Amino acid sequence: MTAGRDVIVTVRPLLPPVEKLTTALAEVFDSGVITNDGPRVRALESLLSAALGMEDLAVCASGTTAIQLACCALEMTGEVLVPAAAFPAAAQAVLRAGGTPIAVDIEPTYLTMDPAAAAAAVTPRTCGIMAVHTFGCPADVDALESLAATAGIPLLFDGAACWGVRFRDRPLLSFGDASTLSLHATKLTHSVEGGAVMSRTRSISDKIRRLRNFGSTPDGALAAGTNARMSELHAAVGAIVLGEAGAEISRRQAIRRLYEDGLRTLPWLEPCAFRSDAASNIGAFPVRLAPDTGYDAEQLSDALLRYGVHTRAYFAGRYRIHAIARHAATPHADAAARSIVCLPFWGAMTSQEVFRVIEALRAVHTGHRAAR
Amino acid sequence: MTAGRDVIVTVRPLLPPVEKLTTALAEVFDSGVITNDGPRVRALESLLSAALGMEDLAVCASGTTAIQLACCALEMTGEVLVPAAAFPAAAQAVLRAGGTPIAVDIEPTYLTMDPAAAAAAVTPRTCGIMAVHTFGCPADVDALESLAATAGIPLLFDGAACWGVRFRDRPLLSFGDASTLSLHATKLTHSVEGGAVMSRTRSISDKIRRLRNFGSTPDGALAAGTNARMSELHAAVGAIVLGEAGAEISRRQAIRRLYEDGLRTLPWLEPCAFRSDAASNIGAFPVRLAPDTGYDAEQLSDALLRYGVHTRAYFAGRYRIHAIARHAATPHADAAARSIVCLPFWGAMTSQEVFRVIEALRAVHTGHRAAR
Repeated sequence: MTAGRDVIVTVRPLLPPVEKLTTALAEVFDSGVITNDGPRVRALESLLSAALGMEDLAVCASGTTAIQLACCALEMTGEVLVPAAAFPAAAQAVLRAGGTPIAVDIEPTYLTMDPAAAAAAVTPRTCGIMAVHTFGCPADVDALESLAATAGIPLLFDGAACWGVRFRDRPLLSFGDASTLSLHATKLTHSVEGGAVMSRTRSISDKIRRLRNFGSTPDGALAAGTNARMSELHAAVGAIVLGEAGAEISRRQAIRRLYEDGLRTLPWLEPCAFRSDAASNIGAFPVRLAPDTGYDAEQLSDALLRYGVHTRAYFAGRYRIHAIARHAATPHADAAARSIVCLPFWGAMTSQEVFRVIEALRAVHTGHRAAR
Repeated sequence: MTAGRDVIVTVRPLLPPVEKLTTALAEVFDSGVITNDGPRVRALESLLSAALGMEDLAVCASGTTAIQLACCALEMTGEVLVPAAAFPAAAQAVLRAGGTPIAVDIEPTYLTMDPAAAAAAVTPRTCGIMAVHTFGCPADVDALESLAATAGIPLLFDGAACWGVRFRDRPLLSFGDASTLSLHATKLTHSVEGGAVMSRTRSISDKIRRLRNFGSTPDGALAAGTNARMSELHAAVGAIVLGEAGAEISRRQAIRRLYEDGLRTLPWLEPCAFRSDAASNIGAFPVRLAPDTGYDAEQLSDALLRYGVHTRAYFAGRYRIHAIARHAATPHADAAARSIVCLPFWGAMTSQEVFRVIEALRAVHTGHRAAR
């Protein structure tokens, strides 16, 4: 069924003109400084800081190490509440920081950590909350901030996909004690591989800069240190891509509208809801499968691939960590694993490609009904 | 004292012609695949494999994550013996893998893990040995392999600086159950940031490839996973630099001879000894300060910087982790912290620069004696 057609991948990296990129990289090589917290890393940090209006910011080698080092900087090294449905990197990063992730259920509508489930899971051993703005959708920041304040523990938001998302006229990345961002190639703005930690106090980014460079301090190396530096090459790419992020946001908004129109013809699928005081989701395009279709998210994703459409059932299968302790049953996370799929979504998608995705979704559904 | 002179840094990255590098990077951008275990990563793995004659090899984002994932793959998640004098990344990586590093003393001559000290530290909780080929000098592989075999625990060698080092007509990186290599910009061959794990069984590299990509398996994500992928950009640079590593080795051998000649005029300093069945050290140029000079490695390093010479006292000060448990007193590691300094060492050094280092060493010593 894919004969003669390229697969439509889930995401394509935003790539400015190659000449612009290679010119910048030639400058990096000519300087002789190609890594180790050089001037391009500092420049990218300044650009990201300025765009967010947040002074306290440090970049890392990846979004995963950004979470890991944020957990270290916030001293989240005991039990840490994490959402039961999330990309595995979040819990893995908590583990790498020496914490013990405890999974709590998510809200059925927004797919973000359920504050009531989190409140029920807090014990004297709980030393932090790591919530996720799932696929760019804001978590319930008010309830989680209030819970963290009452418990006297730090609140970290993983905002991997949240570049450009504003919430109540503030960057979504400005909530919590600290937030992390992914700058991976699949994100709206990226540095090939990369991540960043933003926080509301000045001291966190200094800690992150130490930790990412083997925890080196004048008095010795911190045990929590590692190599989580961004190279000068990646930082130089990041600065150029960032300059094009505004245009990418506009293109993604247009793609989103095309999808929304197409999905109105498929009543068994709906775009995942976005919290009302945020603008539209430009980070990803997750959809929810109705419970009565007779097939689940993984089966849909597998079937779509046979039509040349690559999607991801991010809460199921190879993305699920089974080894993490759960505080209680997580029915909403389990339902999300069965029903949520991320559709191909990037700015340079053509309307033709969006239509192909819609038609593939229709064909899979029709084929399944015929086979029953 | 540095007026009008550039600082001679400890190391400069080997950089092939910029045009060659940017042409390769333009191809990566044109392909649209810039990370996520793409064809350049596989190509670099094949090149490194072929050069070593070792099939089982996987690259990682850094030398540190190479150690971390090797520890995970070898299931070194209990007490792990590590040398008391080593770059902090080694013990940090053991910690990130969930292990508990236990520091044991080093041999006074070769600065590598003392097998007798290691044997004394083995307990029923010991689940692995992570020895280091310090600055490229082979550890006592026979004694350590025999100890590991007797104890029934895996033996990992960190060979961060060991590219090109042969030992008994084999690559030094082929000893132990697994070895790790750094491909950081400061190494003889590099991929800007990077590392690799080599092992003697086929299964380890498959595990590393899973772990570096969020531990993704068809049955779910492994808790030990993380993002430790090398980007396609870094891999493309790595392939080109590797092609020039042979010439770099010859240049470094020549620089080494210049240093050895110069050091004969400074009786209070000697090049660190290299195990006799290995060729000369091309990874680094560590020297040992006589105990009766009245100044130590850190003071020497600080004083040299005032002469425009950047060196590193790698076992002291900001490189020392204080939080690691020690099995017993570590007098040889403590002595190394006081006496070992790595001099500037890279292939493109000029003889003039080597002479400047020698003269700065002489001036510091003379100045210190005059001040006493």
